[in-house]
Amino acid sequence: MTSTPGPAVPPLALTRKKERGSTERAKLDALLDEVLTGVVAVVVDGRPQAVPLLFARDGDRILVHGSSGAGTLRHLAAGAPAVFTVHTIDGLVVAENAFNSSANYRSAVVEGTFTALTGEPAWTALDAITDRLLPGRTGEVPPMTNQEVAATTILALAIEPGRWLYKERTGGAGEPENPSDVWRGVVPLALAAGEPVPEADSVERALPASVAGVLAGHRSPRPR
Amino acid sequence: MTSTPGPAVPPLALTRKKERGSTERAKLDALLDEVLTGVVAVVVDGRPQAVPLLFARDGDRILVHGSSGAGTLRHLAAGAPAVFTVHTIDGLVVAENAFNSSANYRSAVVEGTFTALTGEPAWTALDAITDRLLPGRTGEVPPMTNQEVAATTILALAIEPGRWLYKERTGGAGEPENPSDVWRGVVPLALAAGEPVPEADSVERALPASVAGVLAGHRSPRPR
Repeated sequence: MTSTPGPAVPPLALTRKKERGSTERAKLDALLDEVLTGVVAVVVDGRPQAVPLLFARDGDRILVHGSSGAGTLRHLAAGAPAVFTVHTIDGLVVAENAFNSSANYRSAVVEGTFTALTGEPAWTALDAITDRLLPGRTGEVPPMTNQEVAATTILALAIEPGRWLYKERTGGAGEPENPSDVWRGVVPLALAAGEPVPEADSVERALPASVAGVLAGHRSPRPR
Repeated sequence: MTSTPGPAVPPLALTRKKERGSTERAKLDALLDEVLTGVVAVVVDGRPQAVPLLFARDGDRILVHGSSGAGTLRHLAAGAPAVFTVHTIDGLVVAENAFNSSANYRSAVVEGTFTALTGEPAWTALDAITDRLLPGRTGEVPPMTNQEVAATTILALAIEPGRWLYKERTGGAGEPENPSDVWRGVVPLALAAGEPVPEADSVERALPASVAGVLAGHRSPRPR
């Protein structure tokens, strides 16, 4: 699929709390490689439309997939300008008053136009998404069939300089503005994995390495 | 602030997997009352813009706040049509092949136009947001000052019939399409709270009820 280039888009820039921003690509990549879901937003009939999606980063691309019938994906495949947003909430920052209380987070937006993948690149992308969510799963199950790939829309968004923003808050509650006796500190938060629940036919089967990988990647929350 | 009514907006409707949808307002409310962050998307110069935000549901309203200088909030306050998206990822569903593997989730979108709050309603809304994130915190700290409220933009989005959608997937991996020996099951995921980290001045202070409330609300993941 080719898309007609639109007017030049000004580079993304933070409007506020610029000290929380980073142009380090490694930070963006680490975030994209940690979170499991993002929200893609497009404009449809002049109004915003947004949907959460599983995804994978593959080098300089963000890969998403879904049923070929899905509404928002159809707009993406047609070349609608899109923004892909990811974020974590890493902790609640409890200060001496409400105004100074805050949240630790990492967030990023990547804007651009998705490209639909077909043929060999589509297979490769689907495997990348599977292995991103369940590390090494493609080595544990049969390959996807032609029919399965045909029923799936696979889309890629290039991560390009000037078209992404990264922002984070880390650390504690800072110095109190006024002396106070109230407890101050941080409550760490993280997406954690619980004990796997096997289907009836799998109770006696060994836990695969892919599932062990998910468990290792989503441990209990620790301070950031 | 008043906004000029635009053309009539058709009610939101799911285009796919309608069996995963629900029109039960209680399900929407439970999700909004559990997740801590949402993503708001607006259209700026014909392009989508999206930002993650802390929020609170207060009855039939979604309340958000931010610095008065924040870019996306300025567009919201000016009456730009918006969509507010929340989602959880409740588990990875591990099937006998990649195609049938999936994720358990709950998601919702609420669309409409935000209204800026000032005066007494702004104070009430800020307290609602504080107590949503740290239950009862407003009873533990001094009230906000005039200056603090003036530095904050507080916005409300009404939850109206036909302007929201709820969708979820729950349960296991289903029956396998073909006999297989591979492990099948679900890895539960949830936003979990870790051990609170006090600031140096708070090590000896008792943990407040508000922080205990956060810990109780974000326990370790269990299957859904």
